[in-house]
Amino acid sequence: MALIVQKFGGTSVGSVERIEAVAEHVIKTQQQGHQVVVVLSAMSGETNRLISLAQQIDARPSSRELDVLITTGEQVSIALLAMAIIKRGHSAVSLLADQVGIKTDNMFSKARITEIDTTRLKQELEHNRITIIAGFQGRDEEGNITTLGRGGTDTSAVEIAGALQADECQIYTDVDGVYTTDPRIEPNARRLSHITFPEMLELASVGAKVLQIRSVEAAGRYNVPLRVLSSFSPDNGTLISYEEGKMKNTKVVSGVASVKDEALILVNNVDAKPSNLANVLSLLGEHNIEVDMINHLNHSEKKIDYAFTVHTNDCILAEEVLAQHAQNLGGATVEVNANVAKISVVGIGMKSHSGAAGLFFMALAEENIHTLLVSTSEIKISALVEEKYLELAVRALHAKFGLESTE
Amino acid sequence: MALIVQKFGGTSVGSVERIEAVAEHVIKTQQQGHQVVVVLSAMSGETNRLISLAQQIDARPSSRELDVLITTGEQVSIALLAMAIIKRGHSAVSLLADQVGIKTDNMFSKARITEIDTTRLKQELEHNRITIIAGFQGRDEEGNITTLGRGGTDTSAVEIAGALQADECQIYTDVDGVYTTDPRIEPNARRLSHITFPEMLELASVGAKVLQIRSVEAAGRYNVPLRVLSSFSPDNGTLISYEEGKMKNTKVVSGVASVKDEALILVNNVDAKPSNLANVLSLLGEHNIEVDMINHLNHSEKKIDYAFTVHTNDCILAEEVLAQHAQNLGGATVEVNANVAKISVVGIGMKSHSGAAGLFFMALAEENIHTLLVSTSEIKISALVEEKYLELAVRALHAKFGLESTE
Repeated sequence: MALIVQKFGGTSVGSVERIEAVAEHVIKTQQQGHQVVVVLSAMSGETNRLISLAQQIDARPSSRELDVLITTGEQVSIALLAMAIIKRGHSAVSLLADQVGIKTDNMFSKARITEIDTTRLKQELEHNRITIIAGFQGRDEEGNITTLGRGGTDTSAVEIAGALQADECQIYTDVDGVYTTDPRIEPNARRLSHITFPEMLELASVGAKVLQIRSVEAAGRYNVPLRVLSSFSPDNGTLISYEEGKMKNTKVVSGVASVKDEALILVNNVDAKPSNLANVLSLLGEHNIEVDMINHLNHSEKKIDYAFTVHTNDCILAEEVLAQHAQNLGGATVEVNANVAKISVVGIGMKSHSGAAGLFFMALAEENIHTLLVSTSEIKISALVEEKYLELAVRALHAKFGLESTE
Repeated sequence: MALIVQKFGGTSVGSVERIEAVAEHVIKTQQQGHQVVVVLSAMSGETNRLISLAQQIDARPSSRELDVLITTGEQVSIALLAMAIIKRGHSAVSLLADQVGIKTDNMFSKARITEIDTTRLKQELEHNRITIIAGFQGRDEEGNITTLGRGGTDTSAVEIAGALQADECQIYTDVDGVYTTDPRIEPNARRLSHITFPEMLELASVGAKVLQIRSVEAAGRYNVPLRVLSSFSPDNGTLISYEEGKMKNTKVVSGVASVKDEALILVNNVDAKPSNLANVLSLLGEHNIEVDMINHLNHSEKKIDYAFTVHTNDCILAEEVLAQHAQNLGGATVEVNANVAKISVVGIGMKSHSGAAGLFFMALAEENIHTLLVSTSEIKISALVEEKYLELAVRALHAKFGLESTE
C-alpha cells in the first residue's frame, strides 16, 4: 500500500463530467490498495470569472479580499468531487486550508507555505477516507486566507506530499508528461518516462511549462517522486525523481527548451572600471528588473561592452533607466533587442560528457545560426539567438543530441 | 455612538452595482458615528446555481459537502463588499465563520449556533474597521463547515448582534417593513412603524414572510431591537422591540395574516375513547407529520369527530396513514380538504380587549364566510376558511379592526 497525492488542475475538473471522471479515477487508485489524498484547482474559468467580478469593483482590489474571493473556486471543486465519490458509495471528505492546517506567511496573493499540520489528514486517511484538499490556499498566523500565486495548487500538492512523506505526488494536467522538447516545434519530440529533479528544474527555468519551478524545487527538497500525467488518458506519464539509475540508455541531454520572453540589452563603450558592471546591475535591481544572462567584452583597456538579458516586459524600463545613467558610465550607448530567443539543452549526462558544448555549437553552426550570448551550468547550455531561428535551432539541437530516437 | 449590525440579503447584493450601493450605505452609517458590523447573504441566484451544480452530480448530495459548496456564495459577497469599501478609502475586513468563531452543532444544512466568540470581532471594531461577516455559515466542533438553513443569514445577523450586545440589528430586504397585512391582498395595508416581538412571532408563524421565526425568536431572547428596512430606499422601516409604550394610538390588532399551505383533515365517526386522539396524533408524529390546529366534536356518547390541519405537502401521506389505521378507530372515515386557508389577526392589545373575538367573527359573518376550525392564543385569533374566501376575509378583518387608517 502506497500513500499517493493526486493533483488535478482546472481543465481536469472543468465540468461536472470531468469531475465525475476524476472521481472514478481516484476510486480506482484506492481500489488498487493505495491511500489517496487529492488536491484540486478551481474549475477552469472560475478563477478568471471571480477576478473579473473583483475588477468591476476595483481595478486593483485589496489583495487580502481578492484571496478571500478567489479561494471559493477551489472550495467549489472539492465539494463537488467529494459528492461524486460519496455518490459512488465510497468515503470522502473535502478539507480547506484551515482544516488541514496549511499555514503560510501573510503575503497575500503570493504566500509561501510555512507549515502543514497533518493530524487531521492522517486521521481521515486512517478511516480510509479519500481526502480532498483545496489547493492554492493557506491561512496566515492571524487566520486570514492567503493564496500561493500562479501554479499554487501544484505547490500545495507537493508540500502536502512532503508533509505526509507520500510515496508519490501525481500531477494530472492537460499534457501527458515531459517531452524532450515542445512537440509543436519538433513533431519528433519524445515523451520522457523519467527525468531527474535537477534536469526538470533547469528545463522549467528555460521554458518547459509543464510544472512550476517552485513545486519541482519543493518535491526535490522533500525527495517526493513527482509524476506528470494526463488526466484525460492517464498512463505512466513522466516520473521525476533523484534516481538516475532507472533511466535506460541514458542520454547526454534529456531535453531542449526555448523561451521568447527575454530581451537583449547591450551597453556599449562603458568606461572599463570594475565597479561599473556592479553599478549597472544594482541600478536595475533597484527597479525590480531581474537580469538573466550576463556577459561583457573588453575591446580596449579603457572601454568595455556589457550584454545581458531581462524579461521583455522590463526592457523599456531597463532602457530608460540605463540611458539616464549612461553619462555616469563614460558616455555609454544603450541598445535593446527584443527579437531574441534563448535556446537551452539540459542533461544530467553532461556532467560526465565533455563533448556536449561542442555538439551544441556544431548543431547551430551547421544552420548558420549565430549565438548572441551564452551561459552554461553543470547540466545546461543556453544560447541567445535571433528569434527567427528559434524553431530551427530547437530542431537542430534535438536531432544533434539524438533525442527523437525511441527510448 | 451605537453598535449596529446590518444584514443585507441576496437581492441587496445581487450585482456589482448593488454591492457598491451597500458600500455607500454602510460607510454613511459609520460616518454618522456608529460602529458597523455587516452580515451578508450570497448574491441572488448564486446559491441556486451552486445547488444545481451539486444536483448534476447527485440528486441528494452529501449534506456535509453541500454546505462546503454553498457557503462559497457568502464568501464571494463579503470579499466584494470589503473591496468596494476599501476602494472608497475606508477600512474594512471580511470574515468567515471560523474567523469570527461562529460555532454550531453538526446538523449540516440546518445547524444551530451554539456560541460566538467575539474576540476578533471586537478587535476589528476597536480599529474602527467595518467588519463584514459571511452569513448563513458556521463551524461545528470538528471544524466542519455548517449552514443554518433557509433564512440563515438573518439568524447569523441576530445572533451576532446578540453576542455583541448591539444597539440594533437592521435587516435590509426587498420590502420596506412589516405591514398590517399583505399589500397584494389589501392595497390599503399600512406599514407599521413599530411592532412587539410577541406579535411579530405570531405574525411570522401565520404567514407574514418578512422575517424568519428563528431570527425573531433570537432577537427577542437577546433583547436586541430588530429593524426591517428596504435596501433600495432605506427609511426607518419597522422596528421590532419589547417596548409597547412607544406605539402611538395602540390598536387592538396589529396585523392580519393568511396561509394557504395547510390542509384540513377530518376523521369522522371515531370510537369515543380518550386514547384515540392521542393515538392518531402519535401515529402522525411517527411519520414526521406536524399537526397545527386541532379540534374535536362529540356527536354522540359513542362517536367523535376529529378535525385538524397539516401542511399540504403532508396531506396525502396523512390520509394514507389514517386510512390504514381507520379500523382501529372503530371504522372511522377520513376526509381531506386542501382547499382551505388560515386567516389570523394578531395584536398585543387583545390581551386587554375582550371584544376582539367578537369583532373577528362579526367581520367574517358579514361576508357569509363560514369558519371550519378556530384556534386562539393570548394575542392571536385564527380561523380556517374555504380558500376561495382568503382575500375577502383578510380585507374584511383589516377593515373591521380599523387597520387602514393612518397611524
